Amino acid sequence: MKTFIYPDKNTWAFLSTRPNQNQENLENKVTEIFKEIQQKGDAALLKYTLLFDHVNLTTFAVNQNEIENSCSVVSENLKDAIGLAKANIEKFHRSQRQIKEPVETSKGVVCWREDRPIETIGVYIPGGTAPLFSTVLMLGIPARIAGCKEIVLCTPPNKNGEIDPVILYTAQLIGITSIHKIGGIQAIGALTLGTESIQKVDKIFGPGNQYVTAAKQMAQKLGTAIDLPAGPSELLIIVDEFSVPEFIAADLLSQAEHGDDSQVVLVSDTEAVIKAVQIALENQVKNLPRKQIALAALKNSKLILLKDLDTCIEFSNFYAPEHLILAIENSDRLIAKISNAGSVFLGKYSCESAGDYASGTNHTLPTNGYAKSYSGVSLDSFVKKITFQEITKEGLQVIGPAIELMAEAEKLIGHKNAVSIRLKTMSDV
Amino acid sequence: MKTFIYPDKNTWAFLSTRPNQNQENLENKVTEIFKEIQQKGDAALLKYTLLFDHVNLTTFAVNQNEIENSCSVVSENLKDAIGLAKANIEKFHRSQRQIKEPVETSKGVVCWREDRPIETIGVYIPGGTAPLFSTVLMLGIPARIAGCKEIVLCTPPNKNGEIDPVILYTAQLIGITSIHKIGGIQAIGALTLGTESIQKVDKIFGPGNQYVTAAKQMAQKLGTAIDLPAGPSELLIIVDEFSVPEFIAADLLSQAEHGDDSQVVLVSDTEAVIKAVQIALENQVKNLPRKQIALAALKNSKLILLKDLDTCIEFSNFYAPEHLILAIENSDRLIAKISNAGSVFLGKYSCESAGDYASGTNHTLPTNGYAKSYSGVSLDSFVKKITFQEITKEGLQVIGPAIELMAEAEKLIGHKNAVSIRLKTMSDV
Repeated sequence: MKTFIYPDKNTWAFLSTRPNQNQENLENKVTEIFKEIQQKGDAALLKYTLLFDHVNLTTFAVNQNEIENSCSVVSENLKDAIGLAKANIEKFHRSQRQIKEPVETSKGVVCWREDRPIETIGVYIPGGTAPLFSTVLMLGIPARIAGCKEIVLCTPPNKNGEIDPVILYTAQLIGITSIHKIGGIQAIGALTLGTESIQKVDKIFGPGNQYVTAAKQMAQKLGTAIDLPAGPSELLIIVDEFSVPEFIAADLLSQAEHGDDSQVVLVSDTEAVIKAVQIALENQVKNLPRKQIALAALKNSKLILLKDLDTCIEFSNFYAPEHLILAIENSDRLIAKISNAGSVFLGKYSCESAGDYASGTNHTLPTNGYAKSYSGVSLDSFVKKITFQEITKEGLQVIGPAIELMAEAEKLIGHKNAVSIRLKTMSDV
Repeated sequence: MKTFIYPDKNTWAFLSTRPNQNQENLENKVTEIFKEIQQKGDAALLKYTLLFDHVNLTTFAVNQNEIENSCSVVSENLKDAIGLAKANIEKFHRSQRQIKEPVETSKGVVCWREDRPIETIGVYIPGGTAPLFSTVLMLGIPARIAGCKEIVLCTPPNKNGEIDPVILYTAQLIGITSIHKIGGIQAIGALTLGTESIQKVDKIFGPGNQYVTAAKQMAQKLGTAIDLPAGPSELLIIVDEFSVPEFIAADLLSQAEHGDDSQVVLVSDTEAVIKAVQIALENQVKNLPRKQIALAALKNSKLILLKDLDTCIEFSNFYAPEHLILAIENSDRLIAKISNAGSVFLGKYSCESAGDYASGTNHTLPTNGYAKSYSGVSLDSFVKKITFQEITKEGLQVIGPAIELMAEAEKLIGHKNAVSIRLKTMSDV
């Protein structure tokens, strides 16, 4: 990690640069695979699953037997832990439901919004070394609360054609409606276009590698909504003289272990704490199973000394981190100054991994500076808010003349006529 | 308009096809112009304004003089009408503000969301034959309520280098922070990349032609958020025997006059009403100033007879219209069955043009079937919802062991350690 002592503001843009993402242009490859899925359906999916995942499947759907076996394999302890996380995630996301609140804007003119679930959604869960069942919770639970009718989960099979039992256990626990053994570009293609066995969805959620990201961009281009633009995970921590260096080092490593391209940033007004964190980092990283990944990520990472905590917040807003930990004394007093962040963790005991798993907040968050304009996934991500209006005869008499004048000024006489023809019947009587 | 009598369900996909959008690939052109803006800034903007808008400007910014002149030119009647619309739009969008509601998910674990404005936004207002000042209201008002710091408006100048006075009047009325005479790809490029005189924004709002649409897609690809995927305007009306054919015809024409590619659809359980609407359409279109446009749009449009009102709603949900008018008796009873629509108008007097101008709802809505997965523009579009959590020592003791187990099952030991190191200090004492 590099340390920057009182860096000038004109270097902040440089200090906020994210590690280079692999910019290989995958658009042609994605176009080609999508086209083949469009033409050949399942046959194309089988072909690419053999090619990329090295498994010769006969069917993608996970059957009831596989699910039941999974449930018997997962330990009771882990089931309890997942149960606790589920309850908290449910509680927090249920609190996001909105009540219909009609507003009478003018006399006789009543407007309101009502939520409707997005009917069919896709949930992508990456494969790889670890089974990311926590993401099944984070996407499946709000989808269920929203009332989505179909929740289609896709995740790549291992070389034996299997899916990790904890993923299957979690998926059945929260009521995912169908589970398919398919990953990568071909999974996103199937969810976008639909095939014989995998249904086309209205919106696709979930993380993934560069292939999945490129495929989700194509899905969006073709009219299927996506959750968020993707990017590697990030954490910015603001510390002061009261912070515990060992806690901070553990938090930084928890994010650094995600991938070579993860970025962790430490910002402080106290040089001594920065140094103490560095020492703690060196001690802790030694024993980390994913040490090589964490060390690679730490290379991209920065320790920044700034003149006071207000400047630290200012830098954080400039950076717009996915995760922000305010590991400082009386962190509450800085809340109002936070303008750009995905999810914020306050105080000594709010470690970022709590939000990844079990506190109740969602862990699907904007990265790469997108926190300036995007919110993380919430119940809102699974619904549409439809506006309604009911205008009475009297209501139209109140606002009608204004509509006529405005439509005329915009030279849209058809718009004006729709009001005039109604008002005329009133004056006729 | 073509009439379809009791069409079979397997024809619904065909009946829901939107008119072909101009699919000319503009990506290369957009890439080229964006690159030039990136390299040459304002000089590139001036060049393209001369090339596309045929005006040789020296500066883009609208000055105070121009604004003051505009205010004196707009009639008092129109000012009053705009004032009424402004008050209603404010009232409805203010009601969308959310109050912070902390939830204690587990004992000692408190989570909540807080809204923060997107700091800088761009508002694009198209040029052309009509000054779309109503869109200035629809985008500027919620931006102001949200608290966006910078609201940058771009709109193309006419051949004299001027902007319509009603647009300027409306922009100053609601507190747009800067107004620039620039349109098309070059305007969206400037808002995406920033130049000497136009500031880079976090999110771009507003309608536009195929060039603007292609440029907004590029903006999104480069990391600037956009409001909605674009498409031509649409209206679906459901009528029954109680509907007034003349009102319905006027509503259909109000949408048909938008553009050749607008689409209007009439769905009913009563053949006689469909016929009566057709006659009324023929009568009314004759006198419409934008008759040619309306007639072209009507060519794409459909009259559909279905067996009952439930089937009409089912078709509407399948179609997912931008605007839906339920011009039927007791329309309220069908509300719960609506699952996909941008904005819904209930009853005899709720004409669609009310929502375009003055009832209070927003007129920036999902088209082209996007109502299945997107909401229209609302206060939400101008804010990010940041999640916060504060976990006490006791709180971490409650949820910590679950986090440790789950992190271990995902093979993310760094995530586990962040909890363990904290729990250890508690058991040590």
